Amino acid sequence: MTSLQIFGVGGLPEIEPGADLAGSILRAATEGGQALKDGDVVVVTSKIVSKAEGRTVELAEIVPSQFALEWSAQWGKDPAVTEIVLRESKRVVRQIGPILITETHHGFVCANSGVDQSSSGAHGRAVLLPLDSDDSARRIRAGFVAAGVNAAVIISDTFGRAWREGQTDIAIGIAGMQPILSYIGQVDPHGHEFMVQALCTADELAGAAELVKGNLSRVPVAVIRGYQWAQDDTATIAPVLRDQSRDLFR
Amino acid sequence: MTSLQIFGVGGLPEIEPGADLAGSILRAATEGGQALKDGDVVVVTSKIVSKAEGRTVELAEIVPSQFALEWSAQWGKDPAVTEIVLRESKRVVRQIGPILITETHHGFVCANSGVDQSSSGAHGRAVLLPLDSDDSARRIRAGFVAAGVNAAVIISDTFGRAWREGQTDIAIGIAGMQPILSYIGQVDPHGHEFMVQALCTADELAGAAELVKGNLSRVPVAVIRGYQWAQDDTATIAPVLRDQSRDLFR
Repeated sequence: MTSLQIFGVGGLPEIEPGADLAGSILRAATEGGQALKDGDVVVVTSKIVSKAEGRTVELAEIVPSQFALEWSAQWGKDPAVTEIVLRESKRVVRQIGPILITETHHGFVCANSGVDQSSSGAHGRAVLLPLDSDDSARRIRAGFVAAGVNAAVIISDTFGRAWREGQTDIAIGIAGMQPILSYIGQVDPHGHEFMVQALCTADELAGAAELVKGNLSRVPVAVIRGYQWAQDDTATIAPVLRDQSRDLFR
Repeated sequence: MTSLQIFGVGGLPEIEPGADLAGSILRAATEGGQALKDGDVVVVTSKIVSKAEGRTVELAEIVPSQFALEWSAQWGKDPAVTEIVLRESKRVVRQIGPILITETHHGFVCANSGVDQSSSGAHGRAVLLPLDSDDSARRIRAGFVAAGVNAAVIISDTFGRAWREGQTDIAIGIAGMQPILSYIGQVDPHGHEFMVQALCTADELAGAAELVKGNLSRVPVAVIRGYQWAQDDTATIAPVLRDQSRDLFR
């Protein structure tokens, strides 16, 4: 009977550009009495990845476009933030009132291109999504492996979704394991082909990790221990991002 | 530092109409060496709830409508199943090719009204979603409480989503705890109001539970232990179902 343990890794220092995330996480986990082990799935909140990678913007340095100025005035939004949201997007999927659902350059569909103005360290700074979260995940994983720990890595963010209220943590980058578990062609105990053809376990792992992170606390990393995953270092988040031609809701 | 344990409850008997789910789950958990405890969140797959409630249909008894017959012929689908999908829906949200995304009478937006033709015990039978999963959750919780175990209950199902491939387990019914954790009005350590206003922890709990259930195994119940929840017996899944007037993707 499968049993999982999920725990947060606290005590990480404030993350500055250039920070060695793998090293910081390994150290904090060990100091917290829960050293990382082979087989762990380490879920890292995108915000500390962005901070380590310098993916922050000073709002005062932004010159908003005319469109950003006018649109923001209508809805009482900060035009500098609006300008950043637009720059980070490939297209606007939906806009009703003050809500902008955008598709980012990476291909993520989310509110405000995932731009975060909270927990930025000072007023007037916005945190952007990492440029390439798969690459970020790979580098963190490489750091773990170099230290003798064969752990998979998921970079998580908090997104809303269609049809359901409330947001959940999902995966925006991955390394070491595939994000989707496929049941195509397999049959259940009664000989029926499975209705569920593919499970996005990466999103379930990200959501599970959030349960111990808590938005109010400073726990940007969580470990899921006991989950059986097949190592695959070719893995990326790409299979999760539905192609626009197949997406009925774009 | 919060730490959670998640484990499956195996050894449940084949569930028949009228089964006492709370009793079966309590018994199986104890026999498996992991008796349920106060504070547990018990996630029960909707399929066994449907079976206990007799929410199954013999396909041979269905007389498909003309529309179901014609549409099914176009796409190589079973007209009896199509007829059931349509009957279980309030409206068709999207239809492209063989895919029907419907809104069920409960208000869930999912593929094929959540009708399941797999694991039904025999060919030719379909399993419908429970009539009222909140009520089902309440009755299971009442059974636990009567046995001295103050556990919250989530009824889960596997749904697809917009923009992202792969399905995940989410909550379709709940008892004992609210499904959404609100951060509205609260501030982070830097004094900023939270960007994330509301977290759908019920869906994260359902997805976390799926990680130990595994579609291929017969583990329809999982327990999440160590998660701090506030007891609220007025809770239902209703806050999670986005009102159509606010939904940009209906």
